[in-house]
Amino acid sequence: MKVVTKDKGVYSFSPAHKPVEYVKPGELIILETEDAVGGQIKSEDTPLESIDWSRVNKATGPIYVEGAEKGDTLVVDILDIEVADRGVILVVPGAGILGDSKFEPRVKIAEIRDGLVLFDGLRLPMRPMIGTIGVAPEKGEIPTATPHRHGGNMDCVEVMRSARLYLPVFVDGALFAAGDLHAIQEDGELCVASIEVEGRILLRFSLIKHKAPEWPIVELDDHYSILTADEDLDKAVKLASEQAVKALMRAKGWPFEKAYMFGSIGVKLAINQGVDPKKGARAIIPKTLVTLNDLLIESD
Amino acid sequence: MKVVTKDKGVYSFSPAHKPVEYVKPGELIILETEDAVGGQIKSEDTPLESIDWSRVNKATGPIYVEGAEKGDTLVVDILDIEVADRGVILVVPGAGILGDSKFEPRVKIAEIRDGLVLFDGLRLPMRPMIGTIGVAPEKGEIPTATPHRHGGNMDCVEVMRSARLYLPVFVDGALFAAGDLHAIQEDGELCVASIEVEGRILLRFSLIKHKAPEWPIVELDDHYSILTADEDLDKAVKLASEQAVKALMRAKGWPFEKAYMFGSIGVKLAINQGVDPKKGARAIIPKTLVTLNDLLIESD
Repeated sequence: MKVVTKDKGVYSFSPAHKPVEYVKPGELIILETEDAVGGQIKSEDTPLESIDWSRVNKATGPIYVEGAEKGDTLVVDILDIEVADRGVILVVPGAGILGDSKFEPRVKIAEIRDGLVLFDGLRLPMRPMIGTIGVAPEKGEIPTATPHRHGGNMDCVEVMRSARLYLPVFVDGALFAAGDLHAIQEDGELCVASIEVEGRILLRFSLIKHKAPEWPIVELDDHYSILTADEDLDKAVKLASEQAVKALMRAKGWPFEKAYMFGSIGVKLAINQGVDPKKGARAIIPKTLVTLNDLLIESD
Repeated sequence: MKVVTKDKGVYSFSPAHKPVEYVKPGELIILETEDAVGGQIKSEDTPLESIDWSRVNKATGPIYVEGAEKGDTLVVDILDIEVADRGVILVVPGAGILGDSKFEPRVKIAEIRDGLVLFDGLRLPMRPMIGTIGVAPEKGEIPTATPHRHGGNMDCVEVMRSARLYLPVFVDGALFAAGDLHAIQEDGELCVASIEVEGRILLRFSLIKHKAPEWPIVELDDHYSILTADEDLDKAVKLASEQAVKALMRAKGWPFEKAYMFGSIGVKLAINQGVDPKKGARAIIPKTLVTLNDLLIESD
C-alpha cells in the first residue's frame, strides 16, 4: 500500500503539476492531508492576521493513476477517512453567507473524541467528509479553493466514508488530489469554514474507459448526486437540474417534457455550500430511476 | 366542525378580503381546496392555450381566527391532508428552472391509488403537502402565487400532515387561507408544477400572543425549519441563514461570531423551490439546539 505524506501537496489542480506518486487501478493508497488552514492555527489565540493565506486549501497529490486518459471516468472509492483529535473553525469578516454582517475575526478549536465533535459544551456526532477532491483540468490551473467540473472544493457532505465518486478525466493519469477534511459540516457551510481537520484518507481507484460524467457524481447506497457549481447559486441549481433531466431522458427514453415534469417529483435539489468562490448545488436521483450508465457520456 | 368549500377562495392575500368563515382557537376546521390549475385540466389533451390563467393558484379562505391580533403567532396544526384520486402536472415554455430550454407545453394526468402516485408506469409513494398557506399582509395584497413573510406559495415539502406551522399575524383575525395541494413534490420543484391535486385539509388553529416569527416556521418531530423567499436564491438562503444565526444567539447566549461558526455544522440549508416569482429556501435547526421561544420575537 502506498502512503503519500501531507507535505506532498498542491494549491491548484493543473496538468503542469508533476505527480508525487503513481498507482494502478485497484491498488490501495493512503493520502495524509493537512487541515484547510495548513495547520497554522495552534490555539484560539492565534491571530488571524498571522495566517499566511497562500498556505491554505492544500490538496495532497497529484497522484498519477495508470491507464487514465482523457474521456475516461476516474472512480474513487472512499474506503475510510480518519481525522485528528482536534479541528479548527474560524470566521473572517467578509467571508461566508453572512460575510457582510459586522463581526470580528474569531478562531475556535474543537476537540474530537469518541466519535463526537465538542463545540462549546455541545456534542455532535462526527461525520467526516472530504472537502476538496478532484483531478487536473485539461489546461491552465484551478485553485484548490474553487469547485468546477474537475471536482475541487465541492464541500459536499456526501463525499464521505463508503461513498464512490466519479470524476471526468481530462489528462493522462488524471492527476488526482484531495484534502480539506471536515470532521462535521452541514449542507450550506454557512460561515465558510467547518470543523477543519488534518487526517488520512484510504482510497482505491478504478477506471471506466471512454465515457465520463459532465460534472462529478457521488454514489451512496440508494442514490446518485450530481455536483455542480457556479458563482450564482441559481445557476448551480440550474446546471444540476439540466444534468438530472438529461439522465432521466436517457434512462427512460422520455422526451424532454416528460423528464422535466418528473424532475419536480423524482429529483431532489440540494445545496452543498453557499460560500466558496463558486457555490455548489446537487441533484439527487434515486437508483430506482437511473443507472450509472445514464449519467455518463460516451467520449469520441 | 366547520367546512369551507373550495368555491370560497381568493387569488391574493389581503386585509381587504372579507372572511368566509370565523373559527375559534382549538376548533377543528376543514378546508376543501381546488388544484392549482383551478380544475381546468380534464385530460392530457386539454390545450394549455385554453386555460384561464386568472383562475389558477386559488386559496380557500380567508378564515378569521378569533382573538388573532397583529404581533401574534398563528399556529396551524395540519392534522390531515386528503387528496383526490387524480392529479395533474404540466410544463409551460418559459416556466421552471429550465424554462429557457426549448420545449412544448405538455399536460400529464397522474392517477393516485392505494397511497401511490402513478407516473408513466412508475409508482411513487404519495407524500401530500400544502403548497400555498398563509395570512393577510398588513396592507396591500400579495398574489397567492408568491411566497413571502406571510407564507403564501412556499411550496415546502415539510408543510405536510402532522406538521405544525407558525405564521406571523399582521391583521385582526389573521385572515388565513390555503390551497395548492401536491400529492408529491421534491425539494426544488424543478419544472414549476408538481402533482397538483384537489383535496381537503383538516386544521386546528391556536395563538401565541404578543410574539411572532419574522418568517414562517415549520415544526416537525425533531426540528424547526425557517422558510424564506426572494427573487434570488442566494438571497433567500442568506435570509434563512440570518434567522438561524439569530435563533442560535438567543438559544445559547452566544455572540454572533460563535453562532455564525456553529451555523456551518448545526444548521442545514435547503431549497424549497427554485421557480416561483420568489424562490424559497429553508434553514433546518434540530430541536436539540433551539426551542420555539428562540424563534419568536416579542412584539411591542
